[in-house]
Amino acid sequence: MVYLKGKDILDGAQFTREEIEHIMTVADRFRQDLEDKPGLDLMKGYLLAALFFEPSTRTRLSFETAMHRLGGNVIGFSSAESSSTSKGETLVDTIRTVDRYADIIAMRHPQIGSAKEAAAVANAPVLNGGDGAGQHPTQALLDLYTVRQERGKVDGMTIVLCGDLKNGRTVHAGVEIYKHYHCKLIMVAPEQLKMPSEIVARLRSHGLQVEETANLEEALAKGDVLYMTRIQKERFADPAEYERLKGSYILTREMVERIKPDITIMHPLPRVNEITTDVDSLSNAAYFRQVGNGVFIRMALIASVMGKI
Amino acid sequence: MVYLKGKDILDGAQFTREEIEHIMTVADRFRQDLEDKPGLDLMKGYLLAALFFEPSTRTRLSFETAMHRLGGNVIGFSSAESSSTSKGETLVDTIRTVDRYADIIAMRHPQIGSAKEAAAVANAPVLNGGDGAGQHPTQALLDLYTVRQERGKVDGMTIVLCGDLKNGRTVHAGVEIYKHYHCKLIMVAPEQLKMPSEIVARLRSHGLQVEETANLEEALAKGDVLYMTRIQKERFADPAEYERLKGSYILTREMVERIKPDITIMHPLPRVNEITTDVDSLSNAAYFRQVGNGVFIRMALIASVMGKI
Amino acid sequence: MVYLKGKDILDGAQFTREEIEHIMTVADRFRQDLEDKPGLDLMKGYLLAALFFEPSTRTRLSFETAMHRLGGNVIGFSSAESSSTSKGETLVDTIRTVDRYADIIAMRHPQIGSAKEAAAVANAPVLNGGDGAGQHPTQALLDLYTVRQERGKVDGMTIVLCGDLKNGRTVHAGVEIYKHYHCKLIMVAPEQLKMPSEIVARLRSHGLQVEETANLEEALAKGDVLYMTRIQKERFADPAEYERLKGSYILTREMVERIKPDITIMHPLPRVNEITTDVDSLSNAAYFRQVGNGVFIRMALIASVMGKI
Repeated sequence: MVYLKGKDILDGAQFTREEIEHIMTVADRFRQDLEDKPGLDLMKGYLLAALFFEPSTRTRLSFETAMHRLGGNVIGFSSAESSSTSKGETLVDTIRTVDRYADIIAMRHPQIGSAKEAAAVANAPVLNGGDGAGQHPTQALLDLYTVRQERGKVDGMTIVLCGDLKNGRTVHAGVEIYKHYHCKLIMVAPEQLKMPSEIVARLRSHGLQVEETANLEEALAKGDVLYMTRIQKERFADPAEYERLKGSYILTREMVERIKPDITIMHPLPRVNEITTDVDSLSNAAYFRQVGNGVFIRMALIASVMGKI
Repeated sequence: MVYLKGKDILDGAQFTREEIEHIMTVADRFRQDLEDKPGLDLMKGYLLAALFFEPSTRTRLSFETAMHRLGGNVIGFSSAESSSTSKGETLVDTIRTVDRYADIIAMRHPQIGSAKEAAAVANAPVLNGGDGAGQHPTQALLDLYTVRQERGKVDGMTIVLCGDLKNGRTVHAGVEIYKHYHCKLIMVAPEQLKMPSEIVARLRSHGLQVEETANLEEALAKGDVLYMTRIQKERFADPAEYERLKGSYILTREMVERIKPDITIMHPLPRVNEITTDVDSLSNAAYFRQVGNGVFIRMALIASVMGKI
Repeated sequence: MVYLKGKDILDGAQFTREEIEHIMTVADRFRQDLEDKPGLDLMKGYLLAALFFEPSTRTRLSFETAMHRLGGNVIGFSSAESSSTSKGETLVDTIRTVDRYADIIAMRHPQIGSAKEAAAVANAPVLNGGDGAGQHPTQALLDLYTVRQERGKVDGMTIVLCGDLKNGRTVHAGVEIYKHYHCKLIMVAPEQLKMPSEIVARLRSHGLQVEETANLEEALAKGDVLYMTRIQKERFADPAEYERLKGSYILTREMVERIKPDITIMHPLPRVNEITTDVDSLSNAAYFRQVGNGVFIRMALIASVMGKI
C-alpha cells in the first residue's frame, strides 16, 4: 500500500494514525540505512526547493540534509531579502515559478495559511516548514517520533507542554498528532499564553485527557515527557509584554533532579534561556537527539510524498 | 560541428541565427530527456558558480536547476552583502578568485558591462544573468524559445513589446535575437520609456519591420505575441506621472477576450500589477511555461559552452 | 600510517612538521587527480556544513569547492542573519544541532576561540575558517603550500610578512607553521600594528630568525617571498586610526621591478589597495594561484580528518 504519494504536508491535523505509524516506520528504516553508509541514492537527480522567507537554521538545514542523504539536490533561499519578494512578487507567483524548477518544495513563511496557498498552485508536493503562528507538521511528527524513541511508546504517556501555547506553532501542530494516541496532556502556560480554548475543547471531544495549569513544578511531578517551548519574541506586538513574560518558565537541573529526575526533556529549539545549560548533560535531556530525529522524519516524508517508498 | 564551446554568453547581439537554432535544438533534446528521468550525468563532477550581486529568485534558481539537472553542482552567493564585496573587493578580484574554483560562472551584477569585465579575466565561460540596465541574453533566448514553442515558429510573427522599453534589459537583449527572424515588432511605451531610437534604427536597417505606438489596445489587435514588462517606478522623476502612466499598461482578462483572445501572453517576471491575475488561467497565458523553458535553455547553454554537446 | 583522522583543525600551532608534510603530499595528489577529471567520488554521500557567521567569498566557496570536488555535498549559511543566531541561539546550540546533520563542519565566526568552543561539543571534526582576530589554520597551510609550489622549498627562504601583523589571523596562524621550517621571517608593520612581542619571542626561542622593521623597501630587497596583508577595517575600534594607517604599505609594480623583480608576491585576499593592480600581470604575482591552492589543501584536510586517506 502506498501512503502519502503526491500529498502536501501542511497541517498536523491531516494525518490518520495509520499514516503517522507509516512515517515512523520509514524513518526507522532510514535511521538504520544511515548506520552503514553516509547516504542513499533513492532521490538521485531530484531537486528539493527550500524556500525560507524567514530565517531558520534548524528546519532549513534539516530538510536540506534529508534531501542530500536521500541522494537528491537542493535549490532555494534563506531569506525573503535575497528573493524576488523584494521586488514586490507575490508568494503565489514565486511558487508557480519554483514549481517549474523543483520536484518538491519545503517552505517557511511568516503568514498563517501561506503553505496551503502555495500547495493550491504547485504541482510539486509542498512541505510546510512553519507558516507564522500557524502549523509546523514536520516538527510535530519528529516530536512524536522522539517520544516513541525515548519512551518506547506514546500511548499511556503523560506529556507536559510548557511555554507559549497560544502562539507556538509546534504545539499547535503537535496536539493534532497526539490526539490519535491514548496520552494525557498537561498544558502549562501563563494566562496570556494559554492554549486557545477551542483547541482544548476539540482535544477533549476527541477523548484526550487535558489538564491546564500555570504551575510548571506541579505538572513536572506528573509528567513522563516535558516539552518546553520558547516564549517567541517575534510573535509579540508589544515588546514590554514579551519582557514581562519571557522569564515565566525556566527549567533548571535542580528542578529536574528535585521533582522528576527521569522525565524526558524535549524542546523544538532554538532555546533562549528556558532550559538552563546545566540540564544538557542529563541523559534524559533529549532535545539534541530530537533534532537528529528530524532528519529521519523528513527523509521519510520526502520519500513518501515522492512515491519512492 | 561544435558550437559555442568555451564562449562567454554576454549579449543578445553575439549570436548568429545558426547558433540560436542550435541552442533551441539542444534545449528540445534536454526537455525530452527530462520527461523520462529527473536528471542527467552530463556535467557530473563539474561546478557552476552562481554569483548574484543583486537579488533574484528566478534567474539564479533557473541556472542552479539547469546545472543540477545536468548532474553538476553549484557554489555561489545570492547577495553582495554575503560576499567579500562588503570588504571592498573589486568585481575583477572576486571573479579571478572564483575562476580558480568553478568550471563555469553565471552572474548578475548591477553595473552595465560587468559581465564583459568578468569574462575578460576569467578562464571559465561567463554567462551574463543580467548586468544592470544592460543585457540579459539567456532571458532573450528563452523568450524566443517560448515563442517557438507556443506558436510553432518565429518567422512571420508579430510580437508586441510593451512597458519600459528604455531601461528594460530583457527587451534590449530580446530585439538582438529577433532581428535574425522575419518578424514584425510593435513597440508600445509611453514617450518617456520608448526604445532608444538608435536601436530602432539598427533593427530597421537589419530589415525588421518596427512600429511604435503608445496605445496597447491598438497593438494588441495586431499581435500574435504580447511581451509585457514591468513599468519601473524608480525611473520616474515625477511620481504623479508614474501613477498616470502605469494604468495605461495593465493587461486584464477583459482586454484580452475583447481584443485578441488567442494572443500568446509572455512576461519575464516578476510582475507587480501589469498583468492582472485573472489572466493567469487563460490557456494562452504562457509566462509560467516561459519560466520553465528557462531551465532547458540554460542547460543547453551550459552544456554547449562546456563542450559537452 | 593515518594522520589527522577525527582531528579538529583549529590552530596553526597544532601541527607537527610530519603532519604538515603529509597534508602537502595529499594536496599534490588531489591536484594531479583533478588534471584528468573534474571531480572525485571519495566523499560521496557525505555532508560538509559550512557555517559562516561572517561574510566570506573566498574561504567559504573554497571549502565548498573542496567538498564538491571530493564528491560530497554541502549545507550551511553565509551570514549570521540568515541563521537562528538572530533568534538568540548560542553558538554551542547551533553547533550541537548541525552536528546531528553533517559529517564535518567548516566555520567562520567573529569571536576568538569560537572554533575551539565548537569543537568541544561537536562529534564531527571542526575546521576553523577564521575566528575573529584569532586563527586561520587552513589559510596558513595553503600559504606554506604556495611557498613550496612557487619556490620549490620552504627551508632557507626569507619571507617578508607585511601589513597588520597585530590583528591579522592569517599571519598569526602562518608563523606557527613557518616555525617548523628553517626560514627567516622579516616582519614589516607600523608601530601600532606590530606582531605581538610574545609571538616574536616564541618564534625566536624556536630557533627562527626574526627581523622587525617598519620599512617595506628595505625588507623587499632581502626577501624571497613577500606576504602582503590588508589593514583590516573591521578590526579597528577607532575609524580615524584606520584611515591614518591604511595607506602605510602599498606595493606597486615600480617598487617590485626596482627593488626585487623576482620576489614571489602573495596575499591572502581580499586586497583593497595594498597591491596595485599593475602588479597582477607579473609572473611572480602568485596570489591568484594561492587562492587555487586553497582548494587542494582543503580537500586534503577534509579527506584526512574524515579518514579517507
